[in-house]
Amino acid sequence: MLLSLIIAESALEIVPSKIVSHPSVVNQARRESKKPQEVLLDRSYHHAAMRNIPEAYRRGRPDIIHISLITAIYTPFFLEDKLQVFVHTREDKVITVGKGARLPKSYPRFVSLMEQLFQQKKIVSEDNILLDLKQENFTGLVKRLRPETVIGLSRIGKKSSFAEMAGSMAKTNGGTLVIGGFPRGHFSNTVSKEFDRILSVHEQPLEAHVVIARSIYELERVFG
Amino acid sequence: MLLSLIIAESALEIVPSKIVSHPSVVNQARRESKKPQEVLLDRSYHHAAMRNIPEAYRRGRPDIIHISLITAIYTPFFLEDKLQVFVHTREDKVITVGKGARLPKSYPRFVSLMEQLFQQKKIVSEDNILLDLKQENFTGLVKRLRPETVIGLSRIGKKSSFAEMAGSMAKTNGGTLVIGGFPRGHFSNTVSKEFDRILSVHEQPLEAHVVIARSIYELERVFG
Repeated sequence: MLLSLIIAESALEIVPSKIVSHPSVVNQARRESKKPQEVLLDRSYHHAAMRNIPEAYRRGRPDIIHISLITAIYTPFFLEDKLQVFVHTREDKVITVGKGARLPKSYPRFVSLMEQLFQQKKIVSEDNILLDLKQENFTGLVKRLRPETVIGLSRIGKKSSFAEMAGSMAKTNGGTLVIGGFPRGHFSNTVSKEFDRILSVHEQPLEAHVVIARSIYELERVFG
Repeated sequence: MLLSLIIAESALEIVPSKIVSHPSVVNQARRESKKPQEVLLDRSYHHAAMRNIPEAYRRGRPDIIHISLITAIYTPFFLEDKLQVFVHTREDKVITVGKGARLPKSYPRFVSLMEQLFQQKKIVSEDNILLDLKQENFTGLVKRLRPETVIGLSRIGKKSSFAEMAGSMAKTNGGTLVIGGFPRGHFSNTVSKEFDRILSVHEQPLEAHVVIARSIYELERVFG
């Protein structure tokens, strides 16, 4: 019995080649002694450059992915190998977080690690795979996991609660929970068509990290 | 009825004057166009310099305070003004987080904001006080809040659970929950002497942000 969490359509990518020569990108890369074509797209630095790329409002938020991952991977549920964690990006890359992986709470260190991952496709630490990246779309990832149920959490889903969601998971023999890794908007159809159910677990919109913390806590209670 | 959360003895401070000329401090400040005497102490950058200061293992972790605050302030409980949040530092400064304050999820922006706060003692945004800093020790803060009960969470406390802790709070007319804002070790006596109870809410040691997320969730359930 294995549960998985997918942070889907995540706003995590390397600076697109179209804006790699923009001063905001070049200057930030130089300041950090990095190559412009190898840095993560980050709205905090690249706001001006991002005017020139489509769907900018959903892109360049490694801070959201960092906080979401740190929220997930320091839970007992993850540390005891009862939960697999994946980051699916809007460019259809899938990052698998290794069992018991401890990612840096320090954001600059996290960013450097991700930049290394996008270059090398794999981060190994003391013989264990810490992170692994491959090209794979959401459908491919779900097919590979073969969960008995796929539950997406979204404000436009059926009214439910964290406890009810965990209860539904408990009735299956392995389920996948999907949370959006983007700052605004909803899942795209290519992702949501894979959901068996879409649930709204709170009346108000909640940040991804709050949803992740509460979901995992309730899953722990149910799966003990 | 008001509840408060204190992140106590937090590893958040400006670089101590003793190491302000150390190359690791000077270089990082120059890279970010900041003054060395105004940057936050950060183990990720100042590791080498920190060999020269006492209790270094408990200091220079703004990343922990950032993740802990982001965990607390995006909860419905905080956003609905049912929870006050304070950061008490090991140097006896107390940061009050303004009602409904939205602090940046971006770590570099958070760091800049904190550096500004240590300089100016107050951050105002659209006529609301976002952050306020003053010199005050833990006892002074507790005296000011006058909670009916002060519960400290620590691995060396009485065996309990998040739900039990919230239940204890519910029996009072206003309580204060205290969580350590340091990476290792226990509360010092000057802090723990103010506790009415010390509870251990999980068998294994948990990171501050995990404890905060679960505590607030259980408080919300109880105080609805």
